[in-house]
Amino acid sequence: MTQRFSFTRLGQDGAARLGRINTPRGEIRTPAFMPVGTAATVKAMRPESVRETGADILLGNTYHLMLRPTAERIARLGGLHRFMNWDRPILTDSGGFQVMSLTGLRKLTEQGVTFKSHIDGSKHMLSPERSMEIQKLLRSDIVMCFDECPALPAPRERITESMELSMRWAARSREAFGDWPGHALFGIQQGGLEEDLRGKSAEALRAIEFDGYAVGGLAVGEGQEAMFGVLDYAPGMLPEDKPRYLMGVGKPGDLVGAVKRGIDMFDCVLPSRSGRTGQVFTRRGVVNIKNARHADDPRPLDEDCTCPACRSYSRAYLHHVFRAGEILSSMLLTWHNLHYYQELMQGMRDAIGAGDFAGFEARFLAQQAEGDIAPV
Amino acid sequence: MTQRFSFTRLGQDGAARLGRINTPRGEIRTPAFMPVGTAATVKAMRPESVRETGADILLGNTYHLMLRPTAERIARLGGLHRFMNWDRPILTDSGGFQVMSLTGLRKLTEQGVTFKSHIDGSKHMLSPERSMEIQKLLRSDIVMCFDECPALPAPRERITESMELSMRWAARSREAFGDWPGHALFGIQQGGLEEDLRGKSAEALRAIEFDGYAVGGLAVGEGQEAMFGVLDYAPGMLPEDKPRYLMGVGKPGDLVGAVKRGIDMFDCVLPSRSGRTGQVFTRRGVVNIKNARHADDPRPLDEDCTCPACRSYSRAYLHHVFRAGEILSSMLLTWHNLHYYQELMQGMRDAIGAGDFAGFEARFLAQQAEGDIAPV
Repeated sequence: MTQRFSFTRLGQDGAARLGRINTPRGEIRTPAFMPVGTAATVKAMRPESVRETGADILLGNTYHLMLRPTAERIARLGGLHRFMNWDRPILTDSGGFQVMSLTGLRKLTEQGVTFKSHIDGSKHMLSPERSMEIQKLLRSDIVMCFDECPALPAPRERITESMELSMRWAARSREAFGDWPGHALFGIQQGGLEEDLRGKSAEALRAIEFDGYAVGGLAVGEGQEAMFGVLDYAPGMLPEDKPRYLMGVGKPGDLVGAVKRGIDMFDCVLPSRSGRTGQVFTRRGVVNIKNARHADDPRPLDEDCTCPACRSYSRAYLHHVFRAGEILSSMLLTWHNLHYYQELMQGMRDAIGAGDFAGFEARFLAQQAEGDIAPV
Repeated sequence: MTQRFSFTRLGQDGAARLGRINTPRGEIRTPAFMPVGTAATVKAMRPESVRETGADILLGNTYHLMLRPTAERIARLGGLHRFMNWDRPILTDSGGFQVMSLTGLRKLTEQGVTFKSHIDGSKHMLSPERSMEIQKLLRSDIVMCFDECPALPAPRERITESMELSMRWAARSREAFGDWPGHALFGIQQGGLEEDLRGKSAEALRAIEFDGYAVGGLAVGEGQEAMFGVLDYAPGMLPEDKPRYLMGVGKPGDLVGAVKRGIDMFDCVLPSRSGRTGQVFTRRGVVNIKNARHADDPRPLDEDCTCPACRSYSRAYLHHVFRAGEILSSMLLTWHNLHYYQELMQGMRDAIGAGDFAGFEARFLAQQAEGDIAPV
């Protein structure tokens, strides 16, 4: 196992890239999907099970962890990996996005953001320097720059100011991160849906130099078409030899379209959150397990899926435990959804390797459009 | 694997018995603790994990399953084992106890009980005949007689009437159960804390003849001392060559005291329910994981325990996920509690086999009295 962070491109098909990130904590096959472990747990999953779905890396949330149990406590307990029993790579976000989306009263200045905890109302501060400090206390493998972005649509002026502030914060993040062998710092491109602002942001980040680059400020209300519009040019503005990460995305179709456009990494709460609300992702589209049509259905969710929910249970059972509010429902459906996402990523990696990404995408879209099997 | 139900006594130490129940679905080592799978799931546990804790048999609740998803639906789907993915033995209760404890409006007659569902208010009926029908639809391995019992304390007259009604229902249950090879029917002794009524009840049951006998009507508010008082004589009134089952019991100390008095089987929601509320059973007594003293404690719950919660997590982590309301908290603490209960049963089985039950009980009580390790 390598002692430093590196990215190797293993193949390309159109703009879609097959690659491998090496870290001292293990390899990350790209394109990669990172399940979200907000409060030091991927909800309703033991980490062994998350690994079984095929995940190489998890995402942890700086905002949640700094509030509870605090980064200092996690550091005293040996870091986030040991705390949550996951010894493979962890990427942590910077806290910036969630401060803006989860807290009510907050104050944004050049220095950073002060805000009140959504848990107990206590007052806190995040800045590039504090965010780096927290992510280091967590012993994150991939650290994200502290940034800020508006929900879309937003006036161009607001997007410009926000992007420029984020670029100044990116430089301060780089400075505060310093030299930390084996760990990576990723910059985050901003600029909303404005191509020229995306270009300026990319230029600023490239001048600072990062170990990887995220496309930020998307999946914030703009819709898939607008997002793909940005992804038609944004990844190409970033260095070819570094991983590209699309933050907070997305639905299965978003992932396929983004990989096609040159994205290497993703994170999203969708598969785990949907597992708890009974929304199931399958090769034939979304299945709502709470629907009465499943009550007597002896068939699995997806007869070709090898996850525990599909291997051992009928739709009727999954419907029953969901309706009864049983914890097992969240456990099984989250497992299935994460398994499906990882299988989708593996399918894309195989297709890129085989030079058949266009064929893969066509089959994916056709199957999704087909819809669920007919009721019994 | 045998095709019929049988009980073999393998050893005895005082009144404590070591044994084995054989069923077509597998062996049950006694004394046995049966985790409760109320709504066709042991809450927060996959059945594979329940088995890993050492459980040979689960309990299913007729009352809950008849209301949702209904016994008829489970039968159409191949029976309860297949429905819930547990292929080992299942004991089902008769529904009688829960109708009396969970429903508001109900009417008790010689024929049976009519009641309204606690889920949707719909009207239902249970009688010895209907209870047998439901338990057969579920394909239960050990079927319980339909009975009725008052909460204690209760007037002697009420206890007498109730016991006599239950004995008439026991005869009707036996008749309705008929001949079902490989499956067992257990009678239930009633009579509250009254030795003469317990004797009459046992006499009535022995005249009918069952494959096993439960001591019912305890753990309903009488306290441990009164319960042990009954257990000093009640098991001895039941046939020696059949398993004896103490229903709905109990705390670890209850189990040890009851095994000492000749009980072979137990069921209780306590370990699983407590897992969800943060009450942890350990060899050194109960630990409340929500207590702030655990927030920075890097030690496992019990350093000698081999369950996943103790093997891979600190008290600090378990405290954190409990406080954060994470599903993983219920998953890990339920697993630990069930593991502890099964280890306790194994310890008792070993002690009976070695003729050292008195020594085991003394060590158990001393360790429990010692209390939790000192805070860090």
